[in-house]
Amino acid sequence: MRVKVFYLEPKERFLQQLSSVLCLLELLLMIKDKNVKSQSNDVVIEAGEKLPDLPTYTAEEVSKHGDKNSFWVTYKHGVYDVTKFLPSHPGGEQIMNAGGLSIEPFWNVYGMHKTPEIYKLLESYRIGNLHDDDVIDHSDDELWVKEPVRDNRLIVKTAKPFNAEIPAKYQIEFFDTPNELFYVRQHMPVPELDADDHRLKVTVKGSKIRTEEFSLRDLDKFRRVTTRAALMCAGNRRSEMNEQVKPVKGIGWMGGAISNAVWGGVYLRDVLLYSGVDPEDTKGKHVIFTGADIDATGVNFSTSIPLDMAMNPSSGILLATTMNGHPLPPDHGRPLRAVVPGAPAVRSVKWLQSITVSEDESPSHWHQKDYRAFNPSKTWETADFATAPPVYSLPVTSAICDPADGDVVSVKNGAVQVRGYAYSGGGAKIVRVDVSADGGRSWWEARELQADAAPPQQHYGWTLWTASVPVATQQKEVELWAKATDSNFNTQPERFNDIWNIRGILSNAYHRIKIKLVH
Amino acid sequence: MRVKVFYLEPKERFLQQLSSVLCLLELLLMIKDKNVKSQSNDVVIEAGEKLPDLPTYTAEEVSKHGDKNSFWVTYKHGVYDVTKFLPSHPGGEQIMNAGGLSIEPFWNVYGMHKTPEIYKLLESYRIGNLHDDDVIDHSDDELWVKEPVRDNRLIVKTAKPFNAEIPAKYQIEFFDTPNELFYVRQHMPVPELDADDHRLKVTVKGSKIRTEEFSLRDLDKFRRVTTRAALMCAGNRRSEMNEQVKPVKGIGWMGGAISNAVWGGVYLRDVLLYSGVDPEDTKGKHVIFTGADIDATGVNFSTSIPLDMAMNPSSGILLATTMNGHPLPPDHGRPLRAVVPGAPAVRSVKWLQSITVSEDESPSHWHQKDYRAFNPSKTWETADFATAPPVYSLPVTSAICDPADGDVVSVKNGAVQVRGYAYSGGGAKIVRVDVSADGGRSWWEARELQADAAPPQQHYGWTLWTASVPVATQQKEVELWAKATDSNFNTQPERFNDIWNIRGILSNAYHRIKIKLVH
Repeated sequence: MRVKVFYLEPKERFLQQLSSVLCLLELLLMIKDKNVKSQSNDVVIEAGEKLPDLPTYTAEEVSKHGDKNSFWVTYKHGVYDVTKFLPSHPGGEQIMNAGGLSIEPFWNVYGMHKTPEIYKLLESYRIGNLHDDDVIDHSDDELWVKEPVRDNRLIVKTAKPFNAEIPAKYQIEFFDTPNELFYVRQHMPVPELDADDHRLKVTVKGSKIRTEEFSLRDLDKFRRVTTRAALMCAGNRRSEMNEQVKPVKGIGWMGGAISNAVWGGVYLRDVLLYSGVDPEDTKGKHVIFTGADIDATGVNFSTSIPLDMAMNPSSGILLATTMNGHPLPPDHGRPLRAVVPGAPAVRSVKWLQSITVSEDESPSHWHQKDYRAFNPSKTWETADFATAPPVYSLPVTSAICDPADGDVVSVKNGAVQVRGYAYSGGGAKIVRVDVSADGGRSWWEARELQADAAPPQQHYGWTLWTASVPVATQQKEVELWAKATDSNFNTQPERFNDIWNIRGILSNAYHRIKIKLVH
Repeated sequence: MRVKVFYLEPKERFLQQLSSVLCLLELLLMIKDKNVKSQSNDVVIEAGEKLPDLPTYTAEEVSKHGDKNSFWVTYKHGVYDVTKFLPSHPGGEQIMNAGGLSIEPFWNVYGMHKTPEIYKLLESYRIGNLHDDDVIDHSDDELWVKEPVRDNRLIVKTAKPFNAEIPAKYQIEFFDTPNELFYVRQHMPVPELDADDHRLKVTVKGSKIRTEEFSLRDLDKFRRVTTRAALMCAGNRRSEMNEQVKPVKGIGWMGGAISNAVWGGVYLRDVLLYSGVDPEDTKGKHVIFTGADIDATGVNFSTSIPLDMAMNPSSGILLATTMNGHPLPPDHGRPLRAVVPGAPAVRSVKWLQSITVSEDESPSHWHQKDYRAFNPSKTWETADFATAPPVYSLPVTSAICDPADGDVVSVKNGAVQVRGYAYSGGGAKIVRVDVSADGGRSWWEARELQADAAPPQQHYGWTLWTASVPVATQQKEVELWAKATDSNFNTQPERFNDIWNIRGILSNAYHRIKIKLVH
């Protein structure tokens, strides 16, 4: 029930809930009529077990029985002829949508069907087994029915939850990534929230607990600001670590889990000050962000950042409502998200519905059991998440976007043009990008760095760069290496070996691609 | 004249200056008497040229003529019998100190002798040449006569100027380095300043120029604060880069050009705000620090930092008067210095006498022609200092302090105890130190990190660490590697090859030592 409410407008929601309750009552009455009572020694825990003595039907055969004359449905392994049941379906004609199909996607949306009583009722109509090849796991279908429409230029890594990277060529085409091309990293289905109704609850736990509630209009009363900030998944470029060292756990991001945007909103610091946070009493405290996105067990997404960081005026953390001048798209947190510049994007909680200032970090498993770093020798058995520091800031990285690995490139005036992005977290600015075409024997400084004017220490955007790299006429192919240096003069490590970690995050060694040359 | 005043107390200084002026007048009158006039076609630019027709004397022979009966002196290659001049020496008996010796060290202190007229006067007493083997370059003697007494445990790299590192064993013995063991990095002789008389001039160049002058007592009216900050020379660990790749220019620092202290003073930001700096108008401006230390050409030491950095409340830049609770020692800037935490120590200008807020960076050669970084392919011919970014923040580094390279170490319980320091600039905190004894195949996390409680992003002290590294019983020697990871999750590069630069700064690759094992 909890999930469904996100997909409905308020009025519809009420009617739907009312109708659901009525349906359920009807069903229960009907079950009583048919005298299918739950008995401890005759339990059907769930419908759709495979029953060896029944005939097998393919999905194609079942699909031919989709009208009132012969109405079959499937549920897991079970095939059911419910033609006679149709007139008494409490939900009326809605059942007709499931003719010749699995009823699971429907029951996933109308979860009140999922009771032992109704499973037993269904089993009373059982006629066969669905062919093994046609049994599909629909267990989470209901979560995804209202997902936003996405730009088909995105490279989908996982569909549910939706995780997709921006193709490299679009990264360098736009300094500020168009919203529809901004990479998408979801942990769960996208909640559908109404901007007018949305409330942000801010709770400050101190000697007494104080809670404020803000509508978006209330937030607008704080000074409005914009910040240019790239957001990058901590797992960006994981696939290289995975391929070049050994397998890691996580989405196989290439270099496309970073994009750049101008975010508009109000300073988190201002809202926290208003809500009673004492700027002199920050040590050891945390700001827990909770989103409206919910996992299968009903837990909201949540993570936290140190209160020190939140209250530092130069960290520029926003409660954002706009992205490149437009209201946040659903995939990017509509109507309200945190933007924690310089931090792994996971801290920039989307669909933000509450903020809690607490002595403790977020207890969520996303915070406690992920986005922490270990040395290469730590295994899933030996890694101690409890004592490992959470990642609140990202190291310097870069990637070559053009050419792409494997490309055939025309040499012009004895050189290859190379373009890419570079980025460093914690407010550091990129001061240099170097490219080598000969295994590090010579380095060519990128001649052009495109970046925001923000000063080092408070620089949160990415840098796009162009380098011209001379190649010898006899060379038919070269390996290009790119490395960036930031304003703290940190550079990328040469190889992934010594930064490898079980989760494959912080994968920032030199980017290396091989290209073929045409002179 | 300019240099001498640093070595005298105020009253003495006045008398000395008066006396000097009188001496000079007398000399000039005397020169007139002797009719030794400067003539364009009979110029003696400087005394002491070798004259082939004169006899040669050894220093030993000259030394026998040191009393009023026979009073010889030398100047460069010249030997002079000035016995007859003694009664008319304007400086009186002082000249007797130079009997039988070179007068250069004295003239270096009393620089008013260095005029063409006096060179000619001297040459009029010429009797011979000093033996080539005995000619000593005294050109900068005068600068060094008042250098502070230093702790003899420091490892002297250069005597003039004094540059000395702290031995590794003392780095790890004290979390806050005792003042007398704090590494010393001088560009010039140590000026001797009087705390009571000292004034700090603060000039803010805007639409109009505003100047404030502060005594130390005036500065005390701002809120007093302390900050724990390590200071590290940008060239720390240069010797490793030099040895492991190819020669670089600069002092051959091992790992001892870093120490840690608690600095007491007032915030630069507060003083700048008081002096009229507009915190909203910082972009592209600079804060030029000028010290009282002066080079051979009379130019004061100077460098600058961006005004953005100076005005950022979290950068915690101090105008410091104390070091570990004591007044600054002369070697560390008595009575006033800047402390720019997280930056190369060169920005923490000592003997601070003026601050200028300007549209321009410091024009000094220390600022313009040094402390800038290049990629490994840049040579002294191709490096363009004008466009290279100045280093205002230091990358993550670490070093093993115990054992030392080449030590014979007893294995206890199958492991070697390894201790060292780690540090990162720009406010980043060390979150992990890893040690490998098998070329990176396995890494052992330091079990103990000793650090200040300041939060990441505002963490300026160093971290001392202890790791226990298992070694196999058959191993007779191992190479230990240490690498640190900071709160931005930047790590050290594996090797020096790809970070090599002509000046040998930012030399932060893994620290590697070889030790012999006794099981």
